Amino acid sequence: MQERTEISTLGEFGLIDHLTKNNETKNSSTIVSVGDDAAVIDHYGRQTVITTDLLVEGIHFDLMYTPLKHLGYKSVIVNISDIYAMNATPTQIVISIAISNKFSVEALDEFYEGVYAACNRYNVDLVGGDTTTSQKGFIISVTAIGEVAPDKYVKRDGAKVNDLICVSGDLGGAFLGLTILEREKKIFEETGAQPDLENQAYIVGRLLKPEARKDVIEYFAEHNIVPTSMMDISDGLSSEMLHICKQSNVGCVLYEDKLPLNEDSKEFAYKLELDPTACALSGGEDYELLFTINQADHEKIEKNNGFSIIGYITEAANEKTFITRGGNKHPLIAQGWNPLK
Amino acid sequence: MQERTEISTLGEFGLIDHLTKNNETKNSSTIVSVGDDAAVIDHYGRQTVITTDLLVEGIHFDLMYTPLKHLGYKSVIVNISDIYAMNATPTQIVISIAISNKFSVEALDEFYEGVYAACNRYNVDLVGGDTTTSQKGFIISVTAIGEVAPDKYVKRDGAKVNDLICVSGDLGGAFLGLTILEREKKIFEETGAQPDLENQAYIVGRLLKPEARKDVIEYFAEHNIVPTSMMDISDGLSSEMLHICKQSNVGCVLYEDKLPLNEDSKEFAYKLELDPTACALSGGEDYELLFTINQADHEKIEKNNGFSIIGYITEAANEKTFITRGGNKHPLIAQGWNPLK
Repeated sequence: MQERTEISTLGEFGLIDHLTKNNETKNSSTIVSVGDDAAVIDHYGRQTVITTDLLVEGIHFDLMYTPLKHLGYKSVIVNISDIYAMNATPTQIVISIAISNKFSVEALDEFYEGVYAACNRYNVDLVGGDTTTSQKGFIISVTAIGEVAPDKYVKRDGAKVNDLICVSGDLGGAFLGLTILEREKKIFEETGAQPDLENQAYIVGRLLKPEARKDVIEYFAEHNIVPTSMMDISDGLSSEMLHICKQSNVGCVLYEDKLPLNEDSKEFAYKLELDPTACALSGGEDYELLFTINQADHEKIEKNNGFSIIGYITEAANEKTFITRGGNKHPLIAQGWNPLK
Repeated sequence: MQERTEISTLGEFGLIDHLTKNNETKNSSTIVSVGDDAAVIDHYGRQTVITTDLLVEGIHFDLMYTPLKHLGYKSVIVNISDIYAMNATPTQIVISIAISNKFSVEALDEFYEGVYAACNRYNVDLVGGDTTTSQKGFIISVTAIGEVAPDKYVKRDGAKVNDLICVSGDLGGAFLGLTILEREKKIFEETGAQPDLENQAYIVGRLLKPEARKDVIEYFAEHNIVPTSMMDISDGLSSEMLHICKQSNVGCVLYEDKLPLNEDSKEFAYKLELDPTACALSGGEDYELLFTINQADHEKIEKNNGFSIIGYITEAANEKTFITRGGNKHPLIAQGWNPLK
């Protein structure tokens, strides 16, 4: 039988001590970390970047099929992905959680194991947070800060006419991972049958344990590329593309045959009778980077196999066009995930 | 009849646009604010301070007697109070909310009216956030960052033997405000009788609309005072005092007759047959500052009527002593609020 320690036996401060006892700081800029009213971060003429996300059980994740360690990992990833999307380097996070009394200390340990794993992998310091009770479910708030050389940050509003539109990695996998997990959950609830994930480790991993594209930012720095605009893909490619167009006051053309899909994703989409293109356009949570570059950087982008050039920016701000394999033109429509609908 | 716009009619981005349309930045260091993946903040050799708090309906606040505007205001105050407690100046906040569908846009407007009122009063920029759905109740996460001249921040671990222990303002009021509101809520639920707050505007205000002690930090700067340790009083004086002693590895002596109590608070405590001293020691949420200073700064502190010197720091780290009006010695015990019990 698994050990279970009630959180109430530790109390708030005991719990914080417990959860942070192995927390080591890695950045020399971290002067004061967990354990005071606030954390202190040093700067030397660099610019600070800050982003925050709130994750709510039953809305953003389902603990029935989400291991707590993966959830902790992903909570960090989704935030530092936003930092990379600014062309910045994440340096610190603060994390607050609200938990119901169904959680044991061991359960929280698992969650924080994932948090620390992500922090270690991405060289980020956990420098503070808050721990409290919820009336229902598990609630996670992460704020990440990062740094960037003065004026090297990349916003959404800088895309220019004739810029190339690029994405890192492949798209639609996380959505397909969610689809199979939701299907198996339903079968389990109706029949009690054990889940059959059909060896779909890739797409399930895309949903449950995404990575942030640190390597992309590093490639930009090495090759002296500064994208004209950039976003991470959390709500879906078409939704993010429309944001860039709106904020840059430009139009775009995207090509269906250029969309990057993983072979496993494609096969599994066909099996479920889903359109792989729709999965790539509207599936969220892949945490890839969508960016635009000046055509002068074409070669630098092309020689990286991890990037796909999927279209270009146009002048007509009211025309966002999607061109199918058959050559048909459709307006690009956002069907991304909307948590308020 | 009050107008009611369903949030779903706006969608997430429409809602964010709506809620931030009057958001103006005030600090020249705010380079990129709401509307991108992350906010960018400039620094010139200053140190950044960051703190975060999670507020959960039914745990931290009761919407039955908490006006949403006050809640928005207080959500900001509790965070920037932590920044002041570092001897730093708050500059930016990010705020995330999760709401159930019982909330209308008008309700959120009221909440943000309070948020912006606090931001304006304390010269803080709202630079980002996240808006999502909750399964139950209203959840608020605020992260505040601030700046401080290099190495001028004040931690909890610097209290030295013979330092004077001081507090700003008066204590126990917020707890008494909570007591009357909870009493009236119970009466209303049982009998339907309208609340009778007995003209206790002061203590009710202390709970519902606290202020952060910006003026205290300004006084320190003007008079060249750097406290040896400092905390804001959110959980209760005795709880915070024990934190300072533990982290500074010192003991303390506090005097009952030195504890600052407002006359309204005292009278109302007697009326409810509560011990005013216990309210001052254990009542939380006053958001006053508890700090220790070197005796050399005694005069500078004494000439400010808003400060009380309530005791001194001793060498014996295992002795935290409370001396009553009658001269009896008791060990100082924390009975502050613990959200995990």
